[in-house]
Amino acid sequence: MGTAAMDRTERLLSPEELEAALRKIGAERYHSNHPFHRLLHDGKLTRGQVQAWALNRYYYQASIPAKDATLMARLPTPELRREWRRRIEDHDGDGVKPGGIERWLKLAEGVGLDRARVESTAEILPATRFAVDAYVHFVRDRTLLEAVASSLTELFSPTIIAERVSGMLANYDWITQDTLAYFTPRLTQAPKDSDWALAYVKDHADTAEKQEAVLAALRFKCDVLWSQLDGLYLAYVAPGLIPPGAFVPGEGA
Amino acid sequence: MGTAAMDRTERLLSPEELEAALRKIGAERYHSNHPFHRLLHDGKLTRGQVQAWALNRYYYQASIPAKDATLMARLPTPELRREWRRRIEDHDGDGVKPGGIERWLKLAEGVGLDRARVESTAEILPATRFAVDAYVHFVRDRTLLEAVASSLTELFSPTIIAERVSGMLANYDWITQDTLAYFTPRLTQAPKDSDWALAYVKDHADTAEKQEAVLAALRFKCDVLWSQLDGLYLAYVAPGLIPPGAFVPGEGA
Repeated sequence: MGTAAMDRTERLLSPEELEAALRKIGAERYHSNHPFHRLLHDGKLTRGQVQAWALNRYYYQASIPAKDATLMARLPTPELRREWRRRIEDHDGDGVKPGGIERWLKLAEGVGLDRARVESTAEILPATRFAVDAYVHFVRDRTLLEAVASSLTELFSPTIIAERVSGMLANYDWITQDTLAYFTPRLTQAPKDSDWALAYVKDHADTAEKQEAVLAALRFKCDVLWSQLDGLYLAYVAPGLIPPGAFVPGEGA
Repeated sequence: MGTAAMDRTERLLSPEELEAALRKIGAERYHSNHPFHRLLHDGKLTRGQVQAWALNRYYYQASIPAKDATLMARLPTPELRREWRRRIEDHDGDGVKPGGIERWLKLAEGVGLDRARVESTAEILPATRFAVDAYVHFVRDRTLLEAVASSLTELFSPTIIAERVSGMLANYDWITQDTLAYFTPRLTQAPKDSDWALAYVKDHADTAEKQEAVLAALRFKCDVLWSQLDGLYLAYVAPGLIPPGAFVPGEGA
């Protein structure tokens, strides 16, 4: 059996037990455990491999506001929608202060990619597109509780961001603090978002069935992140099987 | 640039030119070109690797009637819906003659998998689930013309089926003709389906824009099939990076 069955809850968990079960899923399945992440922050990747990561990850960044707007459209009150609108502002910016998408484009340019080439998403891996689109569809098609729970990977992101930034700065002399400016605001935004979502989930998952749905939603989201690194590993690390039409380091631009 | 731009049509193609452009996409991008397919029909895979293929591919087989029903729901006339209903009958059977899904379960059992374990889909790769679900969503969300065009990989399936069957029978003494009975009806069903879809596409793609959408739909569908083999290759061939919760050969059952 896959570990999918491991975290099953037969009885109603206390809110604290539910949080512990959620954190256990993160400890086991968050993409900080993926070999591609370790290669990235250990400085073991070539510039072309880091470019492939930045080019593909842009599609995830650019899709997050679509995901959040899809979720916000299902929230019943102004209070709830305001909470979620803040996330969209974080990613889209306010027209003056650059948002997460703009900051990610700066990161992509900082590692040597052409901005329009990244924005086109024409050369991303099908694995990236399918995983990211699955996240948007999940938030549209599942219960609101599952949709909110799928955002809980933010609970684990401060650690991976700290690892990425320190590792990349220490190991790649062609990457500057300025290039990694994307990550700085996320260190405060992500915890604010995940604290709210965790409280919402602990408050609303009031049956064993809902709690299992919440745990499954977080496993799903971990899969969305993990399989993006799987695709990058296969295509750009080993065995280097780049799918037809996908980004080839050193070509084009 | 990715080859995504290669087949772009600036002017209106003749129906024959459009068919040639579609067949060119198949020649370049159909999963018969994937190293995992070659390993499979050359008999280079272990029984556990063939099991992983059968277990994952089941999710694709089981989702095809959902894809076809989604498409059929959008067809405007009884004549068109009857044409598409035949495809669903081919996969679901008529209650007496087993359909494609039942025959695939026989194949999975024939390579040593437990039927209920396969049907649960609990241990498939996220890459499989995301790619297959992307196909169902594509058929729901795109134009009817694009939805029909995305089925045109059937144009290329008789060749890959012949390679699979002959290669697997010749190279795996634990695979019998009976185990591969899934494929026999497909050799006549697939051409009937693709002849109809090809005629429909050649008839309805009457602007350069529609023709480009049709070509893009076939490229998308090739990506859906290709990325399923990418996932299997990464997890079960090299580097053997099995995602958390996915099927592990020799475990469970």
